[in-house]
Amino acid sequence: MSTQVFAAANDASRPAVPYRASTAEKQLNIISLERLEVEARGAIPKAGYEFVSGGAGNEWTLRENRRAFNDYRIAAKRLVGLSNNDIDIRTSLLGLNMPSPIMVAPMEAHMMVHEQGEKDTARGAGLAKTLYCSSGASNTTLEEIAKATSGPKWFQLYWNNDDAVTRSLLTRAREAGYTAIILTADALGPGMPEDFKAMGSPFRPDANFANHDPKKGGFGNFFDQKTALTPENIQFIKRFTGLPVIVKGILRPDDADRFIRAGADAIQVSNHGGRQIDGVPASITALPPIVKVVNNRVPIILDGGIRRGIDIVRAIAMGADAVAVGRPMMYGLGLGGAQGVQSVIEHLSNDLKSTMLLAGAAKLSDLDASYIDIVGENERFDTYNG
Amino acid sequence: MSTQVFAAANDASRPAVPYRASTAEKQLNIISLERLEVEARGAIPKAGYEFVSGGAGNEWTLRENRRAFNDYRIAAKRLVGLSNNDIDIRTSLLGLNMPSPIMVAPMEAHMMVHEQGEKDTARGAGLAKTLYCSSGASNTTLEEIAKATSGPKWFQLYWNNDDAVTRSLLTRAREAGYTAIILTADALGPGMPEDFKAMGSPFRPDANFANHDPKKGGFGNFFDQKTALTPENIQFIKRFTGLPVIVKGILRPDDADRFIRAGADAIQVSNHGGRQIDGVPASITALPPIVKVVNNRVPIILDGGIRRGIDIVRAIAMGADAVAVGRPMMYGLGLGGAQGVQSVIEHLSNDLKSTMLLAGAAKLSDLDASYIDIVGENERFDTYNG
Amino acid sequence: MSTQVFAAANDASRPAVPYRASTAEKQLNIISLERLEVEARGAIPKAGYEFVSGGAGNEWTLRENRRAFNDYRIAAKRLVGLSNNDIDIRTSLLGLNMPSPIMVAPMEAHMMVHEQGEKDTARGAGLAKTLYCSSGASNTTLEEIAKATSGPKWFQLYWNNDDAVTRSLLTRAREAGYTAIILTADALGPGMPEDFKAMGSPFRPDANFANHDPKKGGFGNFFDQKTALTPENIQFIKRFTGLPVIVKGILRPDDADRFIRAGADAIQVSNHGGRQIDGVPASITALPPIVKVVNNRVPIILDGGIRRGIDIVRAIAMGADAVAVGRPMMYGLGLGGAQGVQSVIEHLSNDLKSTMLLAGAAKLSDLDASYIDIVGENERFDTYNG
Amino acid sequence: MSTQVFAAANDASRPAVPYRASTAEKQLNIISLERLEVEARGAIPKAGYEFVSGGAGNEWTLRENRRAFNDYRIAAKRLVGLSNNDIDIRTSLLGLNMPSPIMVAPMEAHMMVHEQGEKDTARGAGLAKTLYCSSGASNTTLEEIAKATSGPKWFQLYWNNDDAVTRSLLTRAREAGYTAIILTADALGPGMPEDFKAMGSPFRPDANFANHDPKKGGFGNFFDQKTALTPENIQFIKRFTGLPVIVKGILRPDDADRFIRAGADAIQVSNHGGRQIDGVPASITALPPIVKVVNNRVPIILDGGIRRGIDIVRAIAMGADAVAVGRPMMYGLGLGGAQGVQSVIEHLSNDLKSTMLLAGAAKLSDLDASYIDIVGENERFDTYNG
Repeated sequence: MSTQVFAAANDASRPAVPYRASTAEKQLNIISLERLEVEARGAIPKAGYEFVSGGAGNEWTLRENRRAFNDYRIAAKRLVGLSNNDIDIRTSLLGLNMPSPIMVAPMEAHMMVHEQGEKDTARGAGLAKTLYCSSGASNTTLEEIAKATSGPKWFQLYWNNDDAVTRSLLTRAREAGYTAIILTADALGPGMPEDFKAMGSPFRPDANFANHDPKKGGFGNFFDQKTALTPENIQFIKRFTGLPVIVKGILRPDDADRFIRAGADAIQVSNHGGRQIDGVPASITALPPIVKVVNNRVPIILDGGIRRGIDIVRAIAMGADAVAVGRPMMYGLGLGGAQGVQSVIEHLSNDLKSTMLLAGAAKLSDLDASYIDIVGENERFDTYNG
Repeated sequence: MSTQVFAAANDASRPAVPYRASTAEKQLNIISLERLEVEARGAIPKAGYEFVSGGAGNEWTLRENRRAFNDYRIAAKRLVGLSNNDIDIRTSLLGLNMPSPIMVAPMEAHMMVHEQGEKDTARGAGLAKTLYCSSGASNTTLEEIAKATSGPKWFQLYWNNDDAVTRSLLTRAREAGYTAIILTADALGPGMPEDFKAMGSPFRPDANFANHDPKKGGFGNFFDQKTALTPENIQFIKRFTGLPVIVKGILRPDDADRFIRAGADAIQVSNHGGRQIDGVPASITALPPIVKVVNNRVPIILDGGIRRGIDIVRAIAMGADAVAVGRPMMYGLGLGGAQGVQSVIEHLSNDLKSTMLLAGAAKLSDLDASYIDIVGENERFDTYNG
Repeated sequence: MSTQVFAAANDASRPAVPYRASTAEKQLNIISLERLEVEARGAIPKAGYEFVSGGAGNEWTLRENRRAFNDYRIAAKRLVGLSNNDIDIRTSLLGLNMPSPIMVAPMEAHMMVHEQGEKDTARGAGLAKTLYCSSGASNTTLEEIAKATSGPKWFQLYWNNDDAVTRSLLTRAREAGYTAIILTADALGPGMPEDFKAMGSPFRPDANFANHDPKKGGFGNFFDQKTALTPENIQFIKRFTGLPVIVKGILRPDDADRFIRAGADAIQVSNHGGRQIDGVPASITALPPIVKVVNNRVPIILDGGIRRGIDIVRAIAMGADAVAVGRPMMYGLGLGGAQGVQSVIEHLSNDLKSTMLLAGAAKLSDLDASYIDIVGENERFDTYNG
Repeated sequence: MSTQVFAAANDASRPAVPYRASTAEKQLNIISLERLEVEARGAIPKAGYEFVSGGAGNEWTLRENRRAFNDYRIAAKRLVGLSNNDIDIRTSLLGLNMPSPIMVAPMEAHMMVHEQGEKDTARGAGLAKTLYCSSGASNTTLEEIAKATSGPKWFQLYWNNDDAVTRSLLTRAREAGYTAIILTADALGPGMPEDFKAMGSPFRPDANFANHDPKKGGFGNFFDQKTALTPENIQFIKRFTGLPVIVKGILRPDDADRFIRAGADAIQVSNHGGRQIDGVPASITALPPIVKVVNNRVPIILDGGIRRGIDIVRAIAMGADAVAVGRPMMYGLGLGGAQGVQSVIEHLSNDLKSTMLLAGAAKLSDLDASYIDIVGENERFDTYNG
């Protein structure tokens, strides 16, 4: 149960240290994802846990991603004639039929958590028939990840300064069976949690750039990422791959509008899990004005702080079409490998079903703004006395 | 002082474990119900305490049920010529003359707390001449509970998927002397506190379904509850029993209106003590818009977080007609059996009286919206400078 | 340094316990009144400290009395040409020339804190030439207290159910040199902190009712207080004594108006230090609408949470004419007797002066609404972008 | 590593105590300035740390200076075509070309922290080519400080009651090469943290008044400061020195307007780091209405709570032109002397650059109000449903 896959990113001469990531493979009995995190904290090496769990700066946005859900209370409906069997959480997204609005968010360096890394996460997503989003910053090649999952998959691109590398990555992704490309618009810098930085831990998520057949890629330098992206890049990917493009990392309505006009097939409201820039709003806070400007032109995915069915109910009722879940997948991975990831997805799906039953909604499309009771509105005197 | 009444609900083969519930029988000297809870925590077995005290999910709604009362400050009146003897907290509700607006909320499985279970709670309510609401999920049959109290009683129905069982329960309730039926609209799933779930404790609140004369009921399966209820079910109960129906668990004004149009004789604003779905508003927050839409057509009962006289003053001043109190009754039960329950009711009644004296209101009907000073209103500049 | 002045109020047969109140007599070097409280906590017997420091119920109002000051930020003025010597905090109130707007609030049972009780508090007030308000619930007779202070003094009346007793108290107060009567409108019940109740401590603040010349009073039963007061009682005191009447305990503008129409010569905005009914607003929160309705007809005194010069600046800028300070006087008394009380008054006066210098106001009458920046106003977008 | 430069300010007979200030000289590896403070706490003598880190009164304003930044969330822009090299944080201020909008705030008594005192702070500022503001309350003469830095410098004046002393200080400052004068409008009293006062520590920041050539100054009494300043004093300095004047300590828009009309060349929004009067707003809260009234007539500097690049982004986007940073410079000084100060400035500059890249702004002038998302605005129902 030890591995040495991590070399120091900024000190090549430092001898690789043993890094005892998990090798667990089992179904998990999950009470809540918060409890799962507490348990995972004991199972994941400290560097890995700090890397996964932390956020940028003072972690205000990280905390806000959770707290802000409480601003939107649920106005549950009663006696609507629903039983458990009536609850249907299926949806479709960019042509995919999905068993639920849940997908696995792209995340870096799964070997920080489990020896099987992305392969097990992807396999777990496949077991739950859930969409897996493969990060361009992985410890495993995109081809290996693609083979590991029996379910749908999207590829998240980090644009390289060398256009040949970027084109190679896109070609490889399409050939490996990824059916859409996620253009991450907000990953412009290191974005590492400060607790992780303080540990000086090794970190090398560049599997897609090494030990590969040069014809298919595997060359270039992962760390030579291009940040100077514009809406033009959306069209380039679409033309080059023929695949739909999701633009991830949107927090402003004018950006959403700009990218849709530039051809984006979907918008992902996200602050990168509070990992890139601290001080931006929670995703759920940023959602409403974006929903308004998007006006149903394209689907909206939301990530950031989803831990319970009620959070998904809020996101959907406020106008999102699907949600991406990140860290809890890593905790499931650490505690149970692929089966652990499957357990996380199934727990959250079941929690969503119970919550919809309790909220009085049969289908995702039943969830509209009337389910949302914004904190501060109801308490005002004019509501009370008016 | 030990008992083995609890068998594992989902593991019949597991040997019953000794469960040392309280056997106390005494009057209590109560300073406040918060202090009573601290004391009770030491007297109730851990599983029982977690079961009674906890709430659903992250317990945000559970905490909010208490916190939100602070949003409604009391604008006390002075020099209104009242002495202690002028304070009159009597009221009437659906034809019942009640010594106070306080009633005992329906709660499950009292044997988790005290060996005499519901019998002692009901007896304590009777000693205080207070309305007892008998939960359909009890450790004692509804007939035994009915016999135990000398006071008024209502029966809370869990609708069974087998209509014959439901009809049998209703018939038994009417014959046992219950004078109204509470239709719980929000108990659609397990709803157990996560700390309790994590303990894997036994729980079998199905006394009404076992060991009974088949002619009078006692058959069926408690856990085969019907959730697919509609407003039609209100009329069914009324016609079948001839009794008034209270619909419990309302959080939205449109629901209240819908159920009154369908025949509800009273509305209970409730989030099930924060036990069913976490993320819904506090009961007191949900009250004002419901009061507005109900517009005095039927009485309104509120439960959720009532611990002090001031909370009752708030609820009444904001438009409720009565309040149901749950967990504190269980703490009184655990510490003093029937007499403990009586002590809780009398303490709260006396606290209500002192608070009304201090607030300058002689009768419940004196309490109107002018007593409420909503946090945030008074602090605004236009109030100050206007 | 021990005394046995306290007998059990509700158990006359209980032998008096030794109660080691302070005997300190010294000037205090005060950094802040919060630090003074921490120090006093070690010097005052536990029962006395709990009695003095605590509040009613959950102590929400007690805490709110402090917190709510933060809702009103100070918009300090700069370069207004002031030096220390320009600051003048003198004022006049009901004909009294006062060195500052500070007065000693009426408080019960000072022997809980110091062996010399009210005599030392009054003497300390006199040393600082500060108005002393003598509580009707004292451990010393009103005559002894009157003799102890060289400064101005008012008498706070607890109306007795026996009108002869009330008239006797008023006559004695006028003859002893008290120049105004405070009618406490909000002391209608026991109002003891729960931590104090839980200790079951002795408490007998009825010195005015025992061991006296029957001709001058000293008869009757302190605990037989009359709560059924009305605005008529204001006129009775005025006619009977010829003295001005302050009505204390106002939290509503309509009450203030009603009492002024009934003859009140001053209004005291107060929630009894958060000791009588928990859940009412902080005094400073209740002040603005009262200021508006009073409209300068009579002076307004505010008490509740005053600990620093900035709090007085807020109260005055928001429309109060003077402030009454309670608990800190008791902490000064416990740590330094009369000189300790003097030190508290002088510290607070000096703090008020420095704060006025820093806020850019030379006289109390300079402090107007423009000094107040209400939290939440400045942060709104229309302020920012408008 | 010990020194005895501090004598008791108010007790000349007290023997000087050894005071082991830091002698460190090294570059620092900084993860965040919050972490730096934690580290510095161990390196700075306790008296010095309390003096530097504390604030006035209850330190509400001190904490608010940090908290209030969170009221202004950043609405980051995406896909704007920026790479690291495009980010330009240069600016100019009163004719100075500055590498960034960051300057070193005037602070007293640097020898409390490091044996080299102001000389090392100034030298560090020079190494980073950053504007150094020299406090009139220093442990080193203004001439020594001027010589220590190779960068630009301004002099902060404490006006003396003896006009000859004031004129002497201004003459000396101009001759020593200071290019502007800061008139501190809010330092009217002692303003020492209470934790520091409670220690009774020595403090004598009057180097400019002692051991000097009488012809050039060095006479007078530092503690004889004049507080009775008016806008006339602005013109006096301008005429006497021919240098521009920055008025520091503004919290009200009407003050800003008054001082600009009186000739101020720049306005510094500041609450003196929460050190002078507790209860005034955070600087960032006070900024918006001042920006509005200043209306670009003069530049606006903001200080108070700046710890991260995001704070500078907020200040600039909300209308400030530059920011002054205080305490973190002292922590850098304590841990690394001049190089430590340089490290702090470079860390903050780099953090500002990364944050601008992540926020999607190339130049400071790109940062406008559209980057600010005020907490509470987005959550309102009319935004959501409108």
